[in-house]
Amino acid sequence: MIVGVVKETLPGERRVALVPAVLGALGKAGCEVLIEPGAGEAAGYPDGAYVDRGAKVAGSRAEVFQNAGVIAQVAAYGANLEHGRADLELMRQQQVVMGMFEPLTSLDAVKDVAGRGVTLFAMELIPRITRAQSMDVLSSMATIAGYKAVLLAADALPKMFPMMMTAAGTIAPARVFVIGAGVAGLQAIASCRRLGAQVDAYDVRPAVKEQVESLGAKFVELELETDDAEDAGGYAKEMSEDRLQRQRQLMTEIIGDSDAVITTAAVPGKKAPLRFWSRPTWSVPCNRAP
Amino acid sequence: MIVGVVKETLPGERRVALVPAVLGALGKAGCEVLIEPGAGEAAGYPDGAYVDRGAKVAGSRAEVFQNAGVIAQVAAYGANLEHGRADLELMRQQQVVMGMFEPLTSLDAVKDVAGRGVTLFAMELIPRITRAQSMDVLSSMATIAGYKAVLLAADALPKMFPMMMTAAGTIAPARVFVIGAGVAGLQAIASCRRLGAQVDAYDVRPAVKEQVESLGAKFVELELETDDAEDAGGYAKEMSEDRLQRQRQLMTEIIGDSDAVITTAAVPGKKAPLRFWSRPTWSVPCNRAP
Repeated sequence: MIVGVVKETLPGERRVALVPAVLGALGKAGCEVLIEPGAGEAAGYPDGAYVDRGAKVAGSRAEVFQNAGVIAQVAAYGANLEHGRADLELMRQQQVVMGMFEPLTSLDAVKDVAGRGVTLFAMELIPRITRAQSMDVLSSMATIAGYKAVLLAADALPKMFPMMMTAAGTIAPARVFVIGAGVAGLQAIASCRRLGAQVDAYDVRPAVKEQVESLGAKFVELELETDDAEDAGGYAKEMSEDRLQRQRQLMTEIIGDSDAVITTAAVPGKKAPLRFWSRPTWSVPCNRAP
Repeated sequence: MIVGVVKETLPGERRVALVPAVLGALGKAGCEVLIEPGAGEAAGYPDGAYVDRGAKVAGSRAEVFQNAGVIAQVAAYGANLEHGRADLELMRQQQVVMGMFEPLTSLDAVKDVAGRGVTLFAMELIPRITRAQSMDVLSSMATIAGYKAVLLAADALPKMFPMMMTAAGTIAPARVFVIGAGVAGLQAIASCRRLGAQVDAYDVRPAVKEQVESLGAKFVELELETDDAEDAGGYAKEMSEDRLQRQRQLMTEIIGDSDAVITTAAVPGKKAPLRFWSRPTWSVPCNRAP
């Protein structure tokens, strides 16, 4: 069995589906690895790092698709409609493609791939249960996203996150409001707390209150009926327009008191809320008393 | 007595010498405050915030220089040679100018100002002793610089600062090497530690070892004679070329093991070391084992 690793074509995508470190395990399982030239370069892994672990470098992307039984990608066609479409004609009958595919919002792409006789594994649909933990592609990325969001917020905010008690006076810690307390939200809370910010967090699922509080954040409770906000898999469900309206109203008040807002809310298969309905009021950059 | 606050002219300078919060204290001391239009705008303080505290807004910068007995600036002429020179002809006999001036490296500018019959207070030369703590303009800025350097490094590094222990494996913490353990260096160490990085720190002054270690960092000791590295004021002294050479050699090894290097070394009145003699070896972005 040959496992092929192709270079990502989604603009801005720097990851690679397989890092050299996993090649040993694949070798033991009897797999050969064939990489597209430069496949891991943007992620910091030159071709040589793969070759050192026993991989072969193909002449081209087409050659990888032609020879590999399994193709490993990060953003496969469905998750990369514009630039991924070119892969369609390279796919072969009975080939297996593994990667993120966003199948719930890319139904036509699923049909296209099925039409080529290809078996597709949309990695983001693998349930995040104990048995499937080794196949979880979401938790690690959510962790990084939550951490990175805090760095970006701290860098952009014209105020320091930690409380500073100096001879010249005391600076109050920044107040950050984290919306959504899944893996990304909890990591954002933890990172904010590490940096010394004061954190309020909100999630439609009241069950996460304890997790939020264990990280030293305040769980914000809005007066909303939340009994059906969580689906059977533990994910947040989309809310009705009425409840959304009331939620926005209540949250706007909290946002007004916050220096930064980090949104991590997502509902599987739906577009994540990208924009805010009101701009956070940045606090005055310096509140040192004379 | 009228205190004048002018808008900063150094490109990229967003600070303002006086914030509205201090106007009350100046008022009690019998001072009036006259600001140049937009003086505090880049710092987040519109003219109205000054007016609310009793300040008057002048028609122009020239009007401020014409009427104020004391001019408060952040980067005065000597610290802003190109754009600050225009202020020279606005200065009046017996006027007092307070701001950072970098007089040790801008001797001609000092002479220019003296030639105008002006009394100049170069704020950065006020000794950082207990009695002068209320006039210390360096410590607060060094604190912010140390904190900000860590945010920039964490954002730029293709690796997370904290150790991550997850179901999918463990990620080792980033290793950061902080050079110089004055106010900025110590704040950089503290901020790195907050984010969970492992920190090595170096300073030519062995006396700071305890401070470095109290923040959870490892103090790096290089085999160099360091008995005369600190001057009477507790600042670092410049080193001889021979010792520098040997120091570089030893430090290059540590840098090779580091994910990020933060340099805070400075010697008063000398140019701070801006560039490195070797590029830090960025570690491979992902070291998760399969």
